[in-house]
Amino acid sequence: MKNEIGIYLIGLGVVGSGVAKQLISKEDIFTEAVGSKLVLNHVMVRNKTKKRDFQLSPDLFVDTFEEIINDDSTDVVIEVIGGVEPAKTFIIQALNNQKHVVTANKELIAKHGPELISIATENNVRILFEASVAGGTPIISPVIRDFSANNITSIKAIINGTTNYILSRMSTENADYFEVLKDAQKLGYAESDPTNDVEGVDAAYKLAILSSLSYKSFVKDSDVYCEGITNISAKDFQIAKELGYEIKLIAFSEFKDDQNSARVHPTLNSKNEMLANVNGVLNSVQIETDLIGNVLFHGAGAGSLPTASAVLADVIDISRNISSGFVVLDYMNISEKSSIVEISDLVTKYYIRVSAKDQPGVLSQISTILANHQISIASFIQKSSYDGLAELVIMTHEALERSIQDALGEIRNLNVVKAIDNSIRVMN
Amino acid sequence: MKNEIGIYLIGLGVVGSGVAKQLISKEDIFTEAVGSKLVLNHVMVRNKTKKRDFQLSPDLFVDTFEEIINDDSTDVVIEVIGGVEPAKTFIIQALNNQKHVVTANKELIAKHGPELISIATENNVRILFEASVAGGTPIISPVIRDFSANNITSIKAIINGTTNYILSRMSTENADYFEVLKDAQKLGYAESDPTNDVEGVDAAYKLAILSSLSYKSFVKDSDVYCEGITNISAKDFQIAKELGYEIKLIAFSEFKDDQNSARVHPTLNSKNEMLANVNGVLNSVQIETDLIGNVLFHGAGAGSLPTASAVLADVIDISRNISSGFVVLDYMNISEKSSIVEISDLVTKYYIRVSAKDQPGVLSQISTILANHQISIASFIQKSSYDGLAELVIMTHEALERSIQDALGEIRNLNVVKAIDNSIRVMN
Repeated sequence: MKNEIGIYLIGLGVVGSGVAKQLISKEDIFTEAVGSKLVLNHVMVRNKTKKRDFQLSPDLFVDTFEEIINDDSTDVVIEVIGGVEPAKTFIIQALNNQKHVVTANKELIAKHGPELISIATENNVRILFEASVAGGTPIISPVIRDFSANNITSIKAIINGTTNYILSRMSTENADYFEVLKDAQKLGYAESDPTNDVEGVDAAYKLAILSSLSYKSFVKDSDVYCEGITNISAKDFQIAKELGYEIKLIAFSEFKDDQNSARVHPTLNSKNEMLANVNGVLNSVQIETDLIGNVLFHGAGAGSLPTASAVLADVIDISRNISSGFVVLDYMNISEKSSIVEISDLVTKYYIRVSAKDQPGVLSQISTILANHQISIASFIQKSSYDGLAELVIMTHEALERSIQDALGEIRNLNVVKAIDNSIRVMN
Repeated sequence: MKNEIGIYLIGLGVVGSGVAKQLISKEDIFTEAVGSKLVLNHVMVRNKTKKRDFQLSPDLFVDTFEEIINDDSTDVVIEVIGGVEPAKTFIIQALNNQKHVVTANKELIAKHGPELISIATENNVRILFEASVAGGTPIISPVIRDFSANNITSIKAIINGTTNYILSRMSTENADYFEVLKDAQKLGYAESDPTNDVEGVDAAYKLAILSSLSYKSFVKDSDVYCEGITNISAKDFQIAKELGYEIKLIAFSEFKDDQNSARVHPTLNSKNEMLANVNGVLNSVQIETDLIGNVLFHGAGAGSLPTASAVLADVIDISRNISSGFVVLDYMNISEKSSIVEISDLVTKYYIRVSAKDQPGVLSQISTILANHQISIASFIQKSSYDGLAELVIMTHEALERSIQDALGEIRNLNVVKAIDNSIRVMN
């Protein structure tokens, strides 16, 4: 039983500031919740003299990690600097010094989660990372704790706020991608280099973490097939809506026949689905299990205070262990990876938009190619034509991804076809 | 460290059967998840010889509780018979014999939760009851664990599947209450005596439990103001829809200025709200906190396997403690109750439907009464008239509940008014 639990905070950016402020302003509440006082005893920052919008005692600031971590007064290390290095080195040092670790670092956990969990277990300490997926919305703890009697069969999620904000605005304002992106950057919803978000990399990190924990089988970020949203146009939204769909960047994975498959890409979603109606920067994660069916978690996926909430929940959980004198290790068994289903083996429906010459025989040529590849057409719509060009929209039934790509290649080469303007998978 | 964890199951009804079946069919999975084998060692039933759709060794069945509970081989008692007695007596005996308890009993926890938690704590054992609210959808564990750094400010939920099923069908089929109720009874979604569900009692139990844990201040079931759905008609749905609303039985509570308020009643909800779009037997719970904003949990709220999932998550959590040799007690501090806001002090918007004579001066008389009570009208619609009677719909701005009730009393007594057909609170 310790009266004081020492907390070493690495990073004082958006999330770190939120954590530090709450530790100070809710000191009494946390003491009551834990049974011991949570004391911020070191804060590691790159620039100790930087002006900040709140006061911390200058004694707290440190810029070297190695010495302080041996300090007996530190019980929990919080890492909120992000990226693989130097975060990974710091965390391994902390664990090897029997310090518990709480991190919000999705890239690190997606790439090295199992290794870090093993090091923690060897040292009889815990590493928790609730904030790494869906920010303030609880999802890792429910997966580990509340679904422990279930087989989790699939995950379907909107877990990147930037892209969902952009897509939501494109949908409601009938605006084009670059227009909305610029505005999102001005408003702080997108970074000046938005690549990680708009190309689906950020969502892939989160999906890899959730999938690994859910299926107890390591899915690395590089195992996640990834397509971004930069090709989606206002026209696609118009047509999707007419057909009863919304376009969302969906992170989807499933575990079937001992095989993982995981992918992040734009998707046409039926408006009857709850995920189709998730707008703005919010996140939604739908977990499918054998006993419960679908359970949806929906809320803030980023931001200083929501993310601090998740970090602090982990800190309080660990601190309750320390306070009661017992550490109960987590059951995050992640085995070596199962085989991963290639994207070309996927079976899916497709939305295909084609610009073609407005003349007889075009549909016949396209549909012959599709038929040759065993792709059957669910519906076909000819949109308005201008300049002798017709816009054709084809919705397919389920077909093999590989066949679709082969067929698209052949359709693209037809003399009557000007371009395949877009092709987007349809989820339901 | 125990190799075997003995489980004593009280009750083998819908939930108990689900629990027993999973314990048997997933034995290996649970052993891996816990580190010890979970062994069903006693099953208490009223009728030992009753025919069941699955096989349990006859040796397991017992019909007396007192002797067996002293048995050293029992570690966890699962209670799934429901109701206050004899469940309460059994649970207290179990706790006093240092057995951990898992229960799905909402009535018991709503009425006696803090007392049972105290007894558990005194005996250094745990009592968990995730299944008592929202069935398979995790909500109690997130409130205790994941929101531990937050102040929870309000709860807004659909937590009775029967009524949500009935209201959803009334809405989509434009059907009347009794018609749909009969069908729901045939389909097994409503009991032959549906009172507990349709009068909001079941939802009040669940709201009382969630509110007590969220605000750390005891809200008893009798503190929850309760109105059922039996007065809602197809006509109300028609009008609500025209105005952009869906009618739902909402369980709502908040904690403000050291005061609790908690209520279950039909509500007009804007169609833009996620809760308005929750249909069928599913449950949705929206928790509002200071750090995260709103977080929504959505999924199965009842049923054999979903409820068994929640029971077993509690059992596995406790068993992991037992298996690692340490019991970490829960932090469910529920203090004596704060004062409860009376329903008459509520400030709310109202939908009021009145049948009145179709003659000049009616609106003037009604609006004078409302004005006298400081109630301002947001909109007023005269629906079709027949037989010299007009149907009037009044939407008010926010007003004091007491003033509304007084005004309704006076309006009812007007000579020109035939009846107040319905009055329903409007949530947003």
